[in-house]
Amino acid sequence: MTDLVPILWRDGRVRLLDQTRLPREIVWLDLTTPEQVVEAITTMRIRGAPAIGVAAGYALALAVMRSSARSAEALSAELETTRRMVEASRPTGRNLFWATERIMHVTEQRWPDAAALRAVVIAEAQAIQREDIEACRRIGDFGAELVPASATVLTHCNAGALATGGYGTALGVIRSAVSQGKQVRVIADETRPLLQGARLTAWELSEDGIEVAVIPDSSAASWLRRGEVDLVIVGADRVARNGDFANKIGTYPLALAAHEHGVPFYAAAPLSSFDPHLNTGDDIVIEERSGDEVAWISDTHLLPDGVTVRNLAFDVTPHHLVAAHITEHGVLRPPYLETIGEVFRRR
Amino acid sequence: MTDLVPILWRDGRVRLLDQTRLPREIVWLDLTTPEQVVEAITTMRIRGAPAIGVAAGYALALAVMRSSARSAEALSAELETTRRMVEASRPTGRNLFWATERIMHVTEQRWPDAAALRAVVIAEAQAIQREDIEACRRIGDFGAELVPASATVLTHCNAGALATGGYGTALGVIRSAVSQGKQVRVIADETRPLLQGARLTAWELSEDGIEVAVIPDSSAASWLRRGEVDLVIVGADRVARNGDFANKIGTYPLALAAHEHGVPFYAAAPLSSFDPHLNTGDDIVIEERSGDEVAWISDTHLLPDGVTVRNLAFDVTPHHLVAAHITEHGVLRPPYLETIGEVFRRR
Repeated sequence: MTDLVPILWRDGRVRLLDQTRLPREIVWLDLTTPEQVVEAITTMRIRGAPAIGVAAGYALALAVMRSSARSAEALSAELETTRRMVEASRPTGRNLFWATERIMHVTEQRWPDAAALRAVVIAEAQAIQREDIEACRRIGDFGAELVPASATVLTHCNAGALATGGYGTALGVIRSAVSQGKQVRVIADETRPLLQGARLTAWELSEDGIEVAVIPDSSAASWLRRGEVDLVIVGADRVARNGDFANKIGTYPLALAAHEHGVPFYAAAPLSSFDPHLNTGDDIVIEERSGDEVAWISDTHLLPDGVTVRNLAFDVTPHHLVAAHITEHGVLRPPYLETIGEVFRRR
Repeated sequence: MTDLVPILWRDGRVRLLDQTRLPREIVWLDLTTPEQVVEAITTMRIRGAPAIGVAAGYALALAVMRSSARSAEALSAELETTRRMVEASRPTGRNLFWATERIMHVTEQRWPDAAALRAVVIAEAQAIQREDIEACRRIGDFGAELVPASATVLTHCNAGALATGGYGTALGVIRSAVSQGKQVRVIADETRPLLQGARLTAWELSEDGIEVAVIPDSSAASWLRRGEVDLVIVGADRVARNGDFANKIGTYPLALAAHEHGVPFYAAAPLSSFDPHLNTGDDIVIEERSGDEVAWISDTHLLPDGVTVRNLAFDVTPHHLVAAHITEHGVLRPPYLETIGEVFRRR
C-alpha cells in the first residue's frame, strides 16, 4: 500500500504536493511562510479536512520558525495573528479550527522563552500529522469490518491519503480491506467541479493497484438502482453531535439514493472532524466558491459569456441517512447523540 | 421569444446547427446524405429526443431525394434499409423510432410511382417538425399553468428549442410562463458529461433574456433543501405507459431530491416520446456511451491514464416521483396507467 503523504515538515519548511496539478504533473512545492500555506489551502493545492488541519498546524509552525520574538508572550501574540489568518482560509471543515485550537492551547501554558515555545509548537504540528495518520489506520481497520469479502464500494470526492496526513479515511477503509485480502472494486464519482474523484481518487487507487471506475456524479443513483454497489463510504469535513455532517457537494444526493435502495452509507472521519460545539448540521457554514471553478476547465470556457454560476462547495447530509460514522474510536451507530457524545466524554 | 430551430429542411438539404460547438461557435452544417444525418445524431451534433425524431425523418427524406428508384416498391425497399441504419444510431429516445415508423407507414400505402412516394415522404418529414413545434407550444401553454406568478424553476440537461423541432418542452413551459408575464428564474444543472445545461440551456435562456444560473448537478439537492426551488421541470426521452420515463443521466437523483423536499417534479414531452409498447421503465434500453466523453474536455484529459470510465447516457425515473407529465394533450396526473392510457385511446 502507498506511503503517499500530501504534506511534509522537513528542515523547517513545508513540502506540499500541489493537488491542482494532479494527475498530469507531480509538483512538490517548498513553502516557507504561513501566507504561502494559506494560499495553498484557499486555492486547494491541499484539500480534504484532515490534510487542511495538518497544513494549518504547519502554518503556525512556520510562523514560529520565522519569528524574531524573544519572549514566549510576544511569540504567542504573533501566533494569534497568524491563527486568525489561517482560520479565515476555509470555513466548512472542522479540522483546521481543531488544529489551530490545539496549537494555541499549547501557547497558554507557561514557557521560559520563545525558543521553548517555538520547539513545542513545531512538535505539536508534527504530532498532529503523525496522529492523523494513526487515526486513519485505525479508521481503516474498524471500517474494513464493514466491507464484505467481495465488494463494490462507491465513494465521492477524495477521502484518501491526499486528503489526510496520509493513508486516508474512506480510502483508508478500502486500503485496509484490500490488505486483509478482500476483493474490492471501487466506483469513484468524478466530483464536479474540481474533479477530485477523477483526478485524485482514481490516481491514488490506480497507484495501489486497486480496481477503480470513474463515473459522472449524477449516474451514481443508477448504479445503486441496478444493485451494483454494496456500500457507500465518504469522508466528512465537519460532523455535528447528532450525526449530521458536511462533506463535498454531492454527498447528500448520494446518501438519498443509497437510502432509497437500501445500500449502507458510511462516513469515515477522525474525531478531529467532529465539532463538539455543534448540535446539528443546520448551523454548518457552507463555503461558496468562485463560479470560475464550474465555468472553466483548464483553458476551456464551458459557458456562454455572462452567465451566473452558483458553486456551493459542500452540502449537509442528515444523520438519518447515515448507517454509521467510522472513527478511530470505533464504528459509531445511531442514536448518534449517545454514541458520539460517549466518545466526546471519553476523551 | 426565440424562433431558434436546430434543424431545417431547405432546398432538398438538411441544415443543422452543430450543438457540439455551442455556445462558443455558431456552425451550421449542410447535410445531403442519410449517413451524414446519422453521424450528426450519433455524435450529438443534434440531440434531444424530439429533435432526433425530426432528424430521423429528414434522413429518410434525404434518402428519397438521392434515390434513382423508379417504382414506389423499389424506393420503399431502399427506405427500409436506410431506416435500419437510422434506428441503429441511438437506442433510448422514443421519437426516433416513432418518426421512422410514421414515415414507413406512409410507404405502405399504394403510390403510382417513386416520384409520388418521394413527395409524400418529404412532406411527412416536414410535417413531423411542424407538428413537433406545435406540440411544444401546446406543452408550453398547458405547463405554464403549473408555474406560479413568481417562481424559480430548476431544470436538467437541455429540453429547449435545441432539443426539439423548436420552442422546447421544459424550456417551452418556461417560455410560455414568461410570455404570460410571470417572473421566472431558472437554475440549470450543468449536466455532465456533455454539459448540455451549461452550454445549451444557459445559452438559449440568455438569448431570450431569461434569468439563469448554472450549478453543478450534484448541488441541485442543496438548492432544493434550502427551499430555493419552486418546481422542477425536465424533458423525457421515452415514457412508459405507467409514467416511468427515461431522461438524461442525473434526472433520477434530481427527482429523488425533489420528492424528499416536497417540490413538484414535472416531465414535459410530446406524445411522440411516449412508448405504447412499454408497460414500465424497466425495459427501456439505456445507452452507454464512450468513456472519453467523461475523460476529456476539449483537449484536456481529466483522468489518470488507463482508468476505466462508465458513462450511462440516461437513467429511469419511476412514476411515483413524477407529479405530472405535461403533454400537448394536457397535464396528465397519476394514476398514469389511466391518464396516459386515455390519451393513447383518444388518438
